[in-house]
Formats: sequence, C-alpha cells, structure tokens
Amino acid sequence: MESLISYAEEQPPSSLMTNSSSLKQESNESGSPKCVGGFVLVHAGAGYHSESKAKEYKHVCKRACQRAVDQLRAGALAVEAVTAALVELEDSPFTNAGLGSNLNLSGEIECDASIMDGKSLHFGAVGSISGIKNPVLVANCLLNEAQKGKLSAGRIPPCFLVGPGAHDWAVSHGIPPCPSEKMATRFSLSAYKRNKRKMELAEGTVPGQNRTKKRRQSSENGNGSGCLDTVGAVVVDLEGNVAAAVSSGGLAMKHPGRIGQAAHYGCGCWAENSGNMNPYSTAVSTSGCGEHLIRTMLARECAAAMQSEDAHQALLEAMQNKFISSPFLTSEDRVLGGVIVLRCCRCVEAQPSPNIQGILVEFLWSHTTESMCVGYMSAQDSKAKVLPYAVHEGRFIFTPRSSGGERNISCLFLHRGQDATDASSGKTSGTDCLPPRSDGAAPEGQQGFSVMLK
Amino acid sequence: MESLISYAEEQPPSSLMTNSSSLKQESNESGSPKCVGGFVLVHAGAGYHSESKAKEYKHVCKRACQRAVDQLRAGALAVEAVTAALVELEDSPFTNAGLGSNLNLSGEIECDASIMDGKSLHFGAVGSISGIKNPVLVANCLLNEAQKGKLSAGRIPPCFLVGPGAHDWAVSHGIPPCPSEKMATRFSLSAYKRNKRKMELAEGTVPGQNRTKKRRQSSENGNGSGCLDTVGAVVVDLEGNVAAAVSSGGLAMKHPGRIGQAAHYGCGCWAENSGNMNPYSTAVSTSGCGEHLIRTMLARECAAAMQSEDAHQALLEAMQNKFISSPFLTSEDRVLGGVIVLRCCRCVEAQPSPNIQGILVEFLWSHTTESMCVGYMSAQDSKAKVLPYAVHEGRFIFTPRSSGGERNISCLFLHRGQDATDASSGKTSGTDCLPPRSDGAAPEGQQGFSVMLK
Repeated sequence: MESLISYAEEQPPSSLMTNSSSLKQESNESGSPKCVGGFVLVHAGAGYHSESKAKEYKHVCKRACQRAVDQLRAGALAVEAVTAALVELEDSPFTNAGLGSNLNLSGEIECDASIMDGKSLHFGAVGSISGIKNPVLVANCLLNEAQKGKLSAGRIPPCFLVGPGAHDWAVSHGIPPCPSEKMATRFSLSAYKRNKRKMELAEGTVPGQNRTKKRRQSSENGNGSGCLDTVGAVVVDLEGNVAAAVSSGGLAMKHPGRIGQAAHYGCGCWAENSGNMNPYSTAVSTSGCGEHLIRTMLARECAAAMQSEDAHQALLEAMQNKFISSPFLTSEDRVLGGVIVLRCCRCVEAQPSPNIQGILVEFLWSHTTESMCVGYMSAQDSKAKVLPYAVHEGRFIFTPRSSGGERNISCLFLHRGQDATDASSGKTSGTDCLPPRSDGAAPEGQQGFSVMLK
Repeated sequence: MESLISYAEEQPPSSLMTNSSSLKQESNESGSPKCVGGFVLVHAGAGYHSESKAKEYKHVCKRACQRAVDQLRAGALAVEAVTAALVELEDSPFTNAGLGSNLNLSGEIECDASIMDGKSLHFGAVGSISGIKNPVLVANCLLNEAQKGKLSAGRIPPCFLVGPGAHDWAVSHGIPPCPSEKMATRFSLSAYKRNKRKMELAEGTVPGQNRTKKRRQSSENGNGSGCLDTVGAVVVDLEGNVAAAVSSGGLAMKHPGRIGQAAHYGCGCWAENSGNMNPYSTAVSTSGCGEHLIRTMLARECAAAMQSEDAHQALLEAMQNKFISSPFLTSEDRVLGGVIVLRCCRCVEAQPSPNIQGILVEFLWSHTTESMCVGYMSAQDSKAKVLPYAVHEGRFIFTPRSSGGERNISCLFLHRGQDATDASSGKTSGTDCLPPRSDGAAPEGQQGFSVMLK
C-alpha cells in the first residue's frame, strides 16, 4: 500500500473534468417546490469477477442506483433508498445475494443481510435465512419494528434473527416466502457442482484419483475464488441522513449455519449521522471474506477512520493497518475484502449561490481483491455511472431540504484512468496478499482505489 | 454515575485487608519445579436475582472458579481454563445458559455462546443452537479448528455458526448431542408458563380479562426481569495470556432464531494480549440485554477503555459514555447490562523478591442491573471468593513461567462494604435507568461496582 500512496502522489490524473449543473426545481402535487437530492454508491462485490460477468454487474449496479434515486426523488429517507438498491442487487441472478446466491455444503441457499440507519442508529440483521428472496427486506423490517419500542409484556424486540426463526418472523411480518428451488439459478447450481467436484478431488474421495494431482487442484482453487461477491450500498438523503446495507449468500460451500460479515454488526455495514463527537456522517458497506471482515470489524473501523480530515489517507491507513496488517489476521496468508465508503458534512457553497448551505458528499472505495464493481448516482443525475475496474474519486455538493425549495448543485468529479504502471513486480509492498495477474498487469485492487478527495 | 464517583472518593473503605502469601512450589512427575499461576473472574449474570437464587449462584461461581484454577494448575492456557469455567456455569440448572436456559416463544431452548483467545486473537461463536448441553464447547471447538488453517479446497473455516447447522457441526466434531427435554429444568419450564401467561394477559388473549389489569401487569413485568442471567468468565494464565467467554440462553420468550450479544463478536466477550499499541492485556465478558450490548459493542469498548492508566475511572466512563448515555441507546428507557473486566501487565515486584518479574492483575466489574453475582480465584488460592452483591476491588501479582520455577505471590485486596448510603432519591444522577428498590435502599448496581484499583 505504501507504494500506492507514492503512485497517487507522483502520477498526475490522466484526465480531469469539472462538471457543474443546476437542475430545475420540481413541483409536487400541492404545487409547492419539491426538493430532490441525495446520492447512492453501490457495489456488486469485491472478488474475482470474470469478464463475462462484468457486463451484468455493470447493469445491475446501474439499476440499483436508479432504484435508490427513484426513492430519494420521491422523498424517501436514506434507509428506504438503500433498501431499494439492495433489493435490485439481490434480484440479479449474477450476484451472490438473494436470488442466485452461492449454495452451501448441503446444496442449499442460506443468506445473510443487514442494514443500519445513521439517523436512529438502529440496526437490523438476518443470518442463515432460507426461502426469502430479499433478505434485506427482513433486516429492514427488523430495524423498523425495533424502532416501534417494546413488544407485549415488556419484551425487547430482536435486532438479529437467524435460520428458520428468521424465516418465520419474516413471513409473519408480510414478507413472502420463496421456494428454495426458485432461489437457485443455473449459474449457482453449476458452480455448486464444480465446487463439489473440487472438494472431492481435494479430499481424495474420488476413486482412482492421484493424490498429488488432488492437492495441486486444491491449491489452485483456494479461497473460493470468484465467490466473494457480496453486494451493498450506502446512501445519503436530501436531509443528510446516511444509511448502509449489505447482503450476501456467503462463501461457496460454506457449512450450513455459517454466518458471515453481512449479518454481523459493525462488520458488514455501518451508518452514523454526524453528532457531537463526529463532524462527518459516515456510511460503509463491505465485501470479501466474511471471517476476515468480522474479526477486523472493518465497516466500523473504516467509518471511524472517516472522521479524519483527509478521507483518502484515512481510508488507505485503515485498510493497511486495520485490515491488511491487522494483528487479528496475522495467521492468514491472504486477506480478502473491499469497502465502499461515503461521508458527508454540511458546508456553505461559494459558487454559484453564496450563503446557501449544502451537503458535501465524498465517496471512495478500496479493496484487496482483484476486482470490485462499483456504481454511483446522485438524485440529479440522469443515469448512474459504473466503474467496474477504474480508479475513481468523487466530491459533490447538494442543498439540503432545510434551505427551502431552492437548490443548486455543483459537481466536481476527478477521474483517473486505470493506468497499470509499475507492474514489473506484480505485487505491491506491504500487502503481499495478491497474486500477479496472468497478463502481467498490476493487481487491480492496488491502483489507488482509495482516492484523494481534497 | 457522577455521584457514584463522588461517593467512592468521599467514603473511606469500610474495611481494608492486606493479604500476602507465598505458596509452596509444587513438583511435577519428572521432579522439576512446576509453576502454578493465573487468575479467573466469573459472573453468573447481571440481572434481578432473587435471594433464593443467590445461594445457588454463589455455589456455581465457586465451582466455576475451581474448575478454571484446576486447569491453570495443570498448565492449561487461558482459553482452556475459561472454557472449563463456562462448562460449570452452563451445567448449573439455575443459570440462564446451557442446561436450564430460558425457553423461547415456542417453548424451546436456543443458546448463544462465544469465546475469544487473547493470544491468537481468534474467536468462535455459536448462536441459536439447540440440543447441545455446553454451547461454549462448540464455540471453543470452532476457535480451535479455525487455528488449524484452511479446509479442503482452500475453504476458510467458519468462526460463527448458528441453528441446526451449528448443532450438526458440533456433533460431527465429537460434541455429544443432548435431548431437548433434558435441557429444560423444572425452574425454566415453570418460568415459561408464567411468562406465557403474562404475555397472554398483556396481549388480551385471555378471555374475560380486564384490559386495564392486563396493561398494568405488563408494565410490572417489563424487560423480562430476572431473565438476564447470562454467564461468563475471564482468565489470565501463568504466561500472561488472557481469554474471555460468555454463554446465554437469551431473553425469556425471545423469538426463535434471536441472537443476543453472547454470540456476537465484540459484544459478548473480548480478549486481547498486550501488543505494540496496547500496554495491557485485557479480557471482558458482558451480561444483560443482548440488543443493548450488541448495539454498543460493550465488551470491545470496555477492553479499549482498559488501556487507560486508571482502570477504575476508565470503566466508569466507558459504562457511562459508551453504554448508559450511548447515542446508540437514546430511544431506550432502561439500559441493562453488566461487565466483568480483567487487565494485566508485566511488572517488577518490589517485595518480597526484588527483580523478579511478575504479572499485575487488576479486575473489576460494573452493572446497571440490580445485581450481578461475581466470583474470583487465583491459582494460589485454596478456594474462590464470591461476592454476589458487595463492592469489591482487587489487585495482585503472580510470577510468570519465564521466571523459572521460582514464584512469589503478593496479594492486596481492598474490600469495601455494601453501604447503602444516599438512598433518599432512590436513583443516581446520570443513569435514570434503575427503579428504586422496594426496601428503599439505593440500587445495588450504583454503589461503585467499578472500583478504584490504584
């Protein structure tokens, strides 16, 4: 990671664009001015995505952004918008979440999902849930129910449910069940057969198989490559509230009942509005190997780091010190994970409308895996931008609801191309956890996905 | 809590004793000197214990301490000793863990447990597991298996399993199943019937019942009083390694599949040996309302606080700022929880053997609930001390294995009686979460259970 910082400092951006726009006010039915604003950043997983899948991931990220923005434009809060984005991501048969999730050892689908509302600081999670197409809806329902206060006889409402109990709770709260056979896809079923065969080879349970051969295959296919594509999103709404969510089918061939970071508080997602101690509102969603992300509490660590002045440097340091070099992962030979991060604070725009308070949104992402597909969209954009492999940094301002109907938007995007320089070594100092790519280019996750925002 | 600090500062200890002992060296079979050392602190839950239960809790805390010390004397590491203590606590039909756990809404027992090893920083947890007498054994087995490295085909071993999958994994790893009917006790079954009746009254599902009456009863029995008695322990071994564990049957009448803090990383227990950034090794175990303890990550927060110089002040502040006044719990009218905390560091003893390095152990506890039964024992003690309701503070030194067979122990215990002063208001400023006791005494959890150790 050290050389990454150097690279970012030494190399000028390959392209630099400044966009500024001023969108027309919309009116609602009562004729009063209607504000639109907000921003969504989504990911379709940090993992090892095939080129053939990349196109599908781009599409689903775009659709997820559009869904969230539709909600924001309709006046929804961040937590509702982030749920809408997740539903779209879960519904894609290509992502490892909801429909089409990885199958576990028993050939069944068990999903994890969680959501956090930065405004109320409430959290809802489900783990190892089967037969529900959109686990994020159950997590969101748990969050909403918990905010209604105690149950009968003073019982405290749950924030985290798992297994058949979670399924039954969901159905009793109006979330429709989905037959298991409809959850699996052609793709997930064929991946299961492939993985099962690999395991049998590795364990020597295929008669007539040479043991040396088995072990080599096992090594080649280590870490369940290609199976880490958890999905997630972070949102800020017009009022500056943040929310984050995450959803995952978990590692391929996981043991039944295994819970990953997507259901784990502080590990899969984090959202916290600004407060007395925190100048920034922050929202984070993670992807990667659940066990690594749990033991490092990566979502919360990154959110805490985002309170530093320099978001870029803070995220680099958090990923380096709290994840890659974490004392909690010293026994791991490869550390697999990625994060999307959003932070925002109120500010006064100098241009074009002095003295109108705006909300400055900064977003960035970082990962140690080969790829991470990310998309984003503001409520003023006509369509989402998706950057499956490109380095990117962004910063823009929108005016909050408190400034009345008036609104002015100024956007500044700094694009940096995906220059694969300094690929001679094939890996970067300080990480030692990524294989060189077969084409000789530097690992994608090492090219400054943590970006300068100042 | 503010007035607590004042109380602690203004009132002299009602009794002060200084104990110092020097135990005889033991020899193992080979005749070489055998070191013994280490310390265990256990709790049988922060809750609302009846007087009739207090005696049983004392007994089980003593037995749990003895079990851990037996292990320490046999040369076991902290993680093995803490497991032994938990097994004893779970086996008691009076605690809400393992055998005799609270029944859920469906009349079934589902348990949570977790364990953390401060040396390896590995963690193992099970949630909503049925039909296993000692859930902590499954958590410990998960921890051990994870340390063996990857599974076949490069799969990453799980650290957290739930539900039937957890049960099956446990049995396949040699942990015997226990029929559900043997898990429930006369006490837990009668509590279930009582609770079910209360719910029916509160929900108006009992024909002919007056609605006003129902609501009053509901209010009286709010928060599942008496049902928070999760158990836990923290241990330091002769080499200065720390470990922590926690086990719980969860809230009475919880929804099936509900997971509490006992299965949640950073929330139910925490253990971390000293390192570059941390001068102290710390171990924490929590008890109370799982949802409150999850959302505040209380175990990890208290462990982090224990790196401050003044342990007493740090724990008071952590309990006040990170729990009672936590922004994550602003919507809660009562905040229910307790912690036991241990920290240790290497030091040089001035007396009686200058220049022999020892391990200074400090232990303390704090809770917002009415009572918390705590016991402790060092490997040199002939029996455990149990203080179900008394204020206590402790500090002692033992010599680590690195100093060879030689060992000298000096113990300093400062006892402070349970003076129930300033009970006029019935509650203490800054907490506003405890009811006055019917006998007019101050709430027990408010009398300086966080203690001065310097």
